Amino acid sequence: MWENMAQIFNKLSSDPRVRAIVLSGAGEKAFTTGLDVKAASEGLLSSDAKTDPARKAAVLRRHITAFQDCITAVERCEKPVIVALHGFSLGLGIDLSTATDVRLCSRDTRFGVKEVDIGLAADIGTLSRLPKVVGNYGWVKEVALTAREFGAEEALRVGFVNAVYDNREATIAAAFKLASLIASKSPVAVQGTKEILNFSRDHSVQDGLRYTSVWNSAALQTQDVSAALLSGLQKRTPTFEKL
Amino acid sequence: MWENMAQIFNKLSSDPRVRAIVLSGAGEKAFTTGLDVKAASEGLLSSDAKTDPARKAAVLRRHITAFQDCITAVERCEKPVIVALHGFSLGLGIDLSTATDVRLCSRDTRFGVKEVDIGLAADIGTLSRLPKVVGNYGWVKEVALTAREFGAEEALRVGFVNAVYDNREATIAAAFKLASLIASKSPVAVQGTKEILNFSRDHSVQDGLRYTSVWNSAALQTQDVSAALLSGLQKRTPTFEKL
Amino acid sequence: MWENMAQIFNKLSSDPRVRAIVLSGAGEKAFTTGLDVKAASEGLLSSDAKTDPARKAAVLRRHITAFQDCITAVERCEKPVIVALHGFSLGLGIDLSTATDVRLCSRDTRFGVKEVDIGLAADIGTLSRLPKVVGNYGWVKEVALTAREFGAEEALRVGFVNAVYDNREATIAAAFKLASLIASKSPVAVQGTKEILNFSRDHSVQDGLRYTSVWNSAALQTQDVSAALLSGLQKRTPTFEKL
Amino acid sequence: MWENMAQIFNKLSSDPRVRAIVLSGAGEKAFTTGLDVKAASEGLLSSDAKTDPARKAAVLRRHITAFQDCITAVERCEKPVIVALHGFSLGLGIDLSTATDVRLCSRDTRFGVKEVDIGLAADIGTLSRLPKVVGNYGWVKEVALTAREFGAEEALRVGFVNAVYDNREATIAAAFKLASLIASKSPVAVQGTKEILNFSRDHSVQDGLRYTSVWNSAALQTQDVSAALLSGLQKRTPTFEKL
Amino acid sequence: MWENMAQIFNKLSSDPRVRAIVLSGAGEKAFTTGLDVKAASEGLLSSDAKTDPARKAAVLRRHITAFQDCITAVERCEKPVIVALHGFSLGLGIDLSTATDVRLCSRDTRFGVKEVDIGLAADIGTLSRLPKVVGNYGWVKEVALTAREFGAEEALRVGFVNAVYDNREATIAAAFKLASLIASKSPVAVQGTKEILNFSRDHSVQDGLRYTSVWNSAALQTQDVSAALLSGLQKRTPTFEKL
Amino acid sequence: MWENMAQIFNKLSSDPRVRAIVLSGAGEKAFTTGLDVKAASEGLLSSDAKTDPARKAAVLRRHITAFQDCITAVERCEKPVIVALHGFSLGLGIDLSTATDVRLCSRDTRFGVKEVDIGLAADIGTLSRLPKVVGNYGWVKEVALTAREFGAEEALRVGFVNAVYDNREATIAAAFKLASLIASKSPVAVQGTKEILNFSRDHSVQDGLRYTSVWNSAALQTQDVSAALLSGLQKRTPTFEKL
Repeated sequence: MWENMAQIFNKLSSDPRVRAIVLSGAGEKAFTTGLDVKAASEGLLSSDAKTDPARKAAVLRRHITAFQDCITAVERCEKPVIVALHGFSLGLGIDLSTATDVRLCSRDTRFGVKEVDIGLAADIGTLSRLPKVVGNYGWVKEVALTAREFGAEEALRVGFVNAVYDNREATIAAAFKLASLIASKSPVAVQGTKEILNFSRDHSVQDGLRYTSVWNSAALQTQDVSAALLSGLQKRTPTFEKL
Repeated sequence: MWENMAQIFNKLSSDPRVRAIVLSGAGEKAFTTGLDVKAASEGLLSSDAKTDPARKAAVLRRHITAFQDCITAVERCEKPVIVALHGFSLGLGIDLSTATDVRLCSRDTRFGVKEVDIGLAADIGTLSRLPKVVGNYGWVKEVALTAREFGAEEALRVGFVNAVYDNREATIAAAFKLASLIASKSPVAVQGTKEILNFSRDHSVQDGLRYTSVWNSAALQTQDVSAALLSGLQKRTPTFEKL
Repeated sequence: MWENMAQIFNKLSSDPRVRAIVLSGAGEKAFTTGLDVKAASEGLLSSDAKTDPARKAAVLRRHITAFQDCITAVERCEKPVIVALHGFSLGLGIDLSTATDVRLCSRDTRFGVKEVDIGLAADIGTLSRLPKVVGNYGWVKEVALTAREFGAEEALRVGFVNAVYDNREATIAAAFKLASLIASKSPVAVQGTKEILNFSRDHSVQDGLRYTSVWNSAALQTQDVSAALLSGLQKRTPTFEKL
Repeated sequence: MWENMAQIFNKLSSDPRVRAIVLSGAGEKAFTTGLDVKAASEGLLSSDAKTDPARKAAVLRRHITAFQDCITAVERCEKPVIVALHGFSLGLGIDLSTATDVRLCSRDTRFGVKEVDIGLAADIGTLSRLPKVVGNYGWVKEVALTAREFGAEEALRVGFVNAVYDNREATIAAAFKLASLIASKSPVAVQGTKEILNFSRDHSVQDGLRYTSVWNSAALQTQDVSAALLSGLQKRTPTFEKL
Repeated sequence: MWENMAQIFNKLSSDPRVRAIVLSGAGEKAFTTGLDVKAASEGLLSSDAKTDPARKAAVLRRHITAFQDCITAVERCEKPVIVALHGFSLGLGIDLSTATDVRLCSRDTRFGVKEVDIGLAADIGTLSRLPKVVGNYGWVKEVALTAREFGAEEALRVGFVNAVYDNREATIAAAFKLASLIASKSPVAVQGTKEILNFSRDHSVQDGLRYTSVWNSAALQTQDVSAALLSGLQKRTPTFEKL
Repeated sequence: MWENMAQIFNKLSSDPRVRAIVLSGAGEKAFTTGLDVKAASEGLLSSDAKTDPARKAAVLRRHITAFQDCITAVERCEKPVIVALHGFSLGLGIDLSTATDVRLCSRDTRFGVKEVDIGLAADIGTLSRLPKVVGNYGWVKEVALTAREFGAEEALRVGFVNAVYDNREATIAAAFKLASLIASKSPVAVQGTKEILNFSRDHSVQDGLRYTSVWNSAALQTQDVSAALLSGLQKRTPTFEKL
């Protein structure tokens, strides 16, 4: 399923008809039910076939990397991704949503970095991305070391989500409204903004500025700038070519 | 104008009579009216003279870099810079204020990362500095991708500004009060604190500690330390030599 | 005293009987009274023996590095460290507590990055770690440049502490409760989570993910995972071997 | 063809039957004839369909990235790759061979970073990897800025190739001999060595050491260590399980 | 004089008539006579006016930084710089030539990292750039710690210079020939190659590749590519527009 | 023994009577006989007591880190370290000598990165430091993946050693001569040069320059500069105070 998701995001990334993406959970109760514990424990038993710990480690490392790459496909997607969370959004729900750009949730959402409770350090992205999403290591350490759940209000207060809505439907509606707003802007400007923000997160300000100047040396040649400027002067709604 | 501003900050940086700087907008309505859209669109048309996109890119890149360097002069200024914001503080107002050390604003301030609305990714500093100022990528992505404006209360809540005041005058007065407080401290201590915090933002904790120990190996030899310690013991107000 | 503390933390780090650590101040009035100003000023006078500024700098640098290493021992300790702060927690109290994982405090705690008031830039860790703990450079610059004190409420609001309690006793009790909760989890999972979060703070997301996959390639082979999964299925409390 | 090559290397990377890989050119005259200039110029004309330079840039960037990823698959391959070069090994031949671990060549090999001669900066890997392979920026700048060809002797002198052989056959034979030697060693040791060297190239020594200790915390648990030690004591040739 | 040199290189950097630069020494005996020791020792005495070591340190740091920036202007110059060295090329001659792209010298050149002999660690660039030019830390440590001089043959052997010529005239002639060759190539390709090599020196391979793809997304749109490809097919010498 | 060595180097590092250090092997046959294979294999068997692979990994990681720290003590030693190698200098001999500043060897020295032959990736420093010492990844990959031995001539050619001497005595004599030469220079200049070169190895040129300017802001205040300058003018041998 995760490889499938990665393939979809890779496609959406360069599909010119797509300008913004909303990701939501289909079920009523949960955004994601997380890891299937039963299946996973069976999997662990079967991997016991290999007895050399170093060879087992190689297999595990390849598996973790492949799984990480699936989640990273969401972050690498050139189009902004908005996630609408609700219900249980534990474990993998956190991994996945930290790779998106904007997080909205319903009042009933239950969050949790639960991996410690199943005997492991979260390894699909939460520990690397969550602190950079919220910017506060103290809070992340507490929720990651204790695996305690937290609700929508706390998620809003620490800046994990951008807004809280009454229920799943309202959250998804808000996500689509936000996506539509972003889709009405120049895709050159929007995609450049996402890329430069992602680059800047992992680099010094000086490197961020240098990358930005090279990026915009091509992007500023777009007709979108004059289209946007002229519609501003003429009080018209601009339309922008696909990207 | 921007090159002028850079030259002024370069001068203030090493002028020993200066201990702290307050930056404010002269007009009633706006801290900065941002980019002059009309002039800019004329500029864009004229740069159409060059037809080779790679050569156009070189010209644009040099121009962006020169503009970035003007803003970076504020960050590099060795003396703390406090900005008093009010009214419209869009686009370049954000770029500029993220390069200062402390941001204060009046209740009526209208903020906005507006560049997406004119068809471009902000390239003068906002996308590299704003996330590190507020520490939260989720909120930054939303305001940068949508170009929606936000007010003083939201700016305070996310930590973009340190305090909100009733109006422009009160904000500037508070900025001067803060600047005076900082100016009453040892300039060796104050300038070292600014420099080490700026260095640490872009480096690992280990690198930050190493740089700090080298920096203070000279700075701790100052007479300001004993002056400060003795005035503390004697309940006197210390005076510190210029720097 | 500080070298002593480092040695203790180095020991606790690999002592298999230890799963979580609570650090608190013994006195009623203060978590730490900070630097002994009188002793320090005498120290400064005596170091005046050396007259060559470069040689003095070498002595100072070695001294600062040794002091930093003592504080870093707390951060490097493989077991989570919870600090219970109360009363005066100025200067070194901030340096020390930013090296712990979770900060709790009592309502009466007085915080302050006071070093500027004694003529120096904080050099034992605060300027490198505090901004990464709270994630907000604007607030850190203000409190570090002005040396103004702040209380428990402000510390909670900016995310410097995770929770505020009525008094010293309640804070310590809460710290022990939190430590017990963490101690009930798999030590493989807990110690891996601390290490990966510390690594990720100083590296790009991509580097964080790579390090995580290698770390967990050994850690996932632990019996704790199946122990945790099975107790989850059987609604039992798991017990985990020492580490 | 390049995507095909990437897929093959991705497969070889985790195929336990493979312990070392030899890459060579099938033709008599050339390791690679490089870019098909005619096809490429037709390609450029067709991409002229898009007229917005920013949108063209997006298409080009995606294309370059996809091409780079193909070459990077060789570097990421967990098994050592030895390349046997002969005849014309220009442009893409350099890009490709810098992503391998060991380069051998025949006396008649003609090397060249030729991209400048077709109006572009090499963008598939040469400019990032070649300086780190040979370690000398002065020589790299000269050959990259002038596009002048160089022969086997010069390649040996600057350390671009490890050895020079009389002809294509002798080079391939030597490559297989080297591959066999590597294949006779513990695959846990060999693959760890490649990975740690690749990691260390892009990180500080301190980071390299930290990564190494975590990597080997799993790898040292292999039975290969005792197998190797015992065969050493008993003067036997050890055999190692697949990986 | 050095600020003058920086201004000249800043101008040459964006002057479209310039495609490559040759830097040589005017005198017969020396490329540079290095620091004027007499003037410098007088300067040191006068700076003794300031008595506070921390304030002296600030003045010295600003002075070193300003001097470093002059040398860095050579590295930042967008056009390739070839230096023709002869005679005494000590101290500042090394600082300066490590900031150029290609170093040629005459047989009589005397090199030396002489700063240790005047009581200081070289601080204008040699210690940061020389190891990355030659790629070998062992040799650099020896010549920098002992201040021993070395000649043209040794400089060639370790890769500090690209070639050695009989005398100053022959060296300058060779430099001009090399500059002419580079000037005959596409300036888009040449300047991109210099920039990407400089960026890659200071970044990981992965970062280098990402920067390259963004850089070339604009650069590949140049008419130079098709001009170069077509002249290649038609065996004509291409001409390229200025940049 | 290794912890002992680290303690000695830590002491020498700040002992003002020490200006340069020569490290040599006492035996006739070998600089180091490397790992005691018999003892090591017994150690491995005993560590089999622990059965949980994750807990075993923690023990191994702590052990590797402690061992690495011993070798790093040589690199961190503030005084230059010259190693005189002879005879067998395999495995740990490489780890250790890459942490020194200058390597000299006798004609009979046998080098080898032998770890792969005992089933492991070298983890005490070789894989992180050797490529940065010689600057060439191609050669390092070959000798590390094959564990083939190499002699003094090859070590000289690739720049691993700075010079080759006839026998152990001549090598040690040369090391002492080099150490004496370095000891005759200003210790402020010498120790600063070592530190800045070590820092620059792991950082960008821009970071290296910034660190240098801060370092020298204290170091240039030394009386050694005027002492050196004046003795230069007066053709006297300067004497420098201890450090």
